[in-house]
Amino acid sequence: MEATELDREKTAPKRLGVVDCDIHPSFENPQELGKYLPQRWRDHLRDFALRTPSPFLGAMIYPRMTPGNGMRRDSWPPNGKPPASDLPFLREQLLDQCNIDHGVLQPLAAGAVTNNQDLGAALCVGINDWQIDKFAGPEPRLRASICVAQEDATEAVAEIDRRAHDRRFVQISIPPRTIEPIGRRRYWPIFEAAEHYGLPIGLHTGAFGQRPNTPSGWSSFYLEEHYAASNSLQTVIVSMIMEGVFERFPRLKIVVVEGGFSWVPSLAWRMDREWKRMGSEVPQVKRKPSEYLRDHFWFTTQPIEEPEENRHLDDLLRWIGADRLMFSTDYPHWDFDDPRFAFRTPLDPADRAKIFRENAMALFRLDQ
Amino acid sequence: MEATELDREKTAPKRLGVVDCDIHPSFENPQELGKYLPQRWRDHLRDFALRTPSPFLGAMIYPRMTPGNGMRRDSWPPNGKPPASDLPFLREQLLDQCNIDHGVLQPLAAGAVTNNQDLGAALCVGINDWQIDKFAGPEPRLRASICVAQEDATEAVAEIDRRAHDRRFVQISIPPRTIEPIGRRRYWPIFEAAEHYGLPIGLHTGAFGQRPNTPSGWSSFYLEEHYAASNSLQTVIVSMIMEGVFERFPRLKIVVVEGGFSWVPSLAWRMDREWKRMGSEVPQVKRKPSEYLRDHFWFTTQPIEEPEENRHLDDLLRWIGADRLMFSTDYPHWDFDDPRFAFRTPLDPADRAKIFRENAMALFRLDQ
Repeated sequence: MEATELDREKTAPKRLGVVDCDIHPSFENPQELGKYLPQRWRDHLRDFALRTPSPFLGAMIYPRMTPGNGMRRDSWPPNGKPPASDLPFLREQLLDQCNIDHGVLQPLAAGAVTNNQDLGAALCVGINDWQIDKFAGPEPRLRASICVAQEDATEAVAEIDRRAHDRRFVQISIPPRTIEPIGRRRYWPIFEAAEHYGLPIGLHTGAFGQRPNTPSGWSSFYLEEHYAASNSLQTVIVSMIMEGVFERFPRLKIVVVEGGFSWVPSLAWRMDREWKRMGSEVPQVKRKPSEYLRDHFWFTTQPIEEPEENRHLDDLLRWIGADRLMFSTDYPHWDFDDPRFAFRTPLDPADRAKIFRENAMALFRLDQ
Repeated sequence: MEATELDREKTAPKRLGVVDCDIHPSFENPQELGKYLPQRWRDHLRDFALRTPSPFLGAMIYPRMTPGNGMRRDSWPPNGKPPASDLPFLREQLLDQCNIDHGVLQPLAAGAVTNNQDLGAALCVGINDWQIDKFAGPEPRLRASICVAQEDATEAVAEIDRRAHDRRFVQISIPPRTIEPIGRRRYWPIFEAAEHYGLPIGLHTGAFGQRPNTPSGWSSFYLEEHYAASNSLQTVIVSMIMEGVFERFPRLKIVVVEGGFSWVPSLAWRMDREWKRMGSEVPQVKRKPSEYLRDHFWFTTQPIEEPEENRHLDDLLRWIGADRLMFSTDYPHWDFDDPRFAFRTPLDPADRAKIFRENAMALFRLDQ
């Protein structure tokens, strides 16, 4: 079955390329990051290492049982270095083979979850330099994310100011599990800068945060942590809407990355219902909460929750809007979605073009 | 429109009565609870008051702007005491007027969220005595919940043992926001007792808990806290399933109260998708997560999230199953659902009978 599809693919006329909104570049080794840090922080890392609330660099974040220890089994480059650390191999295996015209790099930013906030800011600067130097500079199909350490908004804005005029950066990346609810004013300078420069904010779901991942503390299992609940992203959306972020920043655009999307309609219904009765608590919320959700949020596709009936996926697409979903592979992670096989439900060709290409082209201004 | 419906209702032939799964009885005043406590704890409350992680008795839990300060405006009894503190008035306004044959009392249990766990256990004993003495004893249409302080499972089981043979108690009530994820083994003695006695466990959504209500700390607004996110209940379900609770207790039944239900299908799809690939992390989970969800969980209806299209509510009902929803009013709270007007979508008469009566009759064994 897969072979037949692949054969058909090979002989089909060349189609317009896909945009992949979620590619995770990797360091070749821990020393590689060091090259992009000032001596002061290289010394610090040598003497004190990285202190984060949860395991990060150098620790297991994926279960060993996942194919390839969290990575696609076939994603190790011939030089034996980590998956997605070698540009020529990434170019061949992902961009060429999957017909990807543009790919957005999403470094899983250690800087954003480092306890030492000055070190966090320095890590983000280094990671941003490295993305250009190693990937987005030599390969124009790849675009970078401005990683910032969101808890110190002043430093974060300084880094955004430094990068925003470089069109190889197409979004600002912060983690959704912030120390305080993300709609609070301490984060508004970042939103202001994002709006000012017309850069979307990418919120990539993550296992990491300064606080436990559920209102009953840390969950026991990877299944709970990574996949089974997309709770933190729901609270993120509610917080941004209820704090009035989109009234203050009406052109702000948010991309929810790797959080799924099947929970979006029910969240909207729930918010609308009570806002009708209790809106006076949040005078900063001038419109139905679902309107902000529809106007300001985009969702990447991987991982697609799979309803038992295709009809339910159709309903979801209709509610969320084919103009609000954007294809992503999550390369090189084990649960990679191949653009040739993603979406079990048949898509209308116009919707397919939007989801696999056009929405991201427009949102990230990739034709510039 | 409402008047016409009411007129039609008045002249319609008497129908089989409704079962209401969520009625909140109230103390007449703080002293009333004292009468049900041993002297040791009366003295303690006098000298130290109740220490909880969040405001509780005596503090505002509902916004003042809600109709009647959180209560239905017309729910004050003629004696001027608090809503739902006066049995004759509750009987007339709720049971008689809404044609309720059976109603399940859901005390919002201070005992379960009291920092002093011995005091918590004593409060639960007092609240259980009071439910019988004041409501379920004199009024056979009302049934009580065995309130327990779940963090000390030994004391909780002792209280269940004391009450379970009294058929006026029809469920065990614990709050979903436990100190650790609710599926952990520290809570299993309670599940074991529940299964042993054939009593469902009612998890009533609540603003209270020892931990912040989101993975980014406390949210700012009542809208976020109470309604906009039903996140904690989602993590509760995931935790119980992934920890293997239902393999160990295959006859355990859980009622999710006042948490909505439109998020249930997407949660199930998400759990199933990854369990297929990563099930070996949780060998205690032998079947698809959605099967446990379908077999072990019931949901009360109030508050019903209202999709924009009735068709979506139909889909939801079909997925969850009309045999898993149970009508509730939330009397006397401001967002009360009247059984005559709840459910905008037209229901098949057989489904209506299940949701408004039969499911709860069977689950709580109300014909006994």
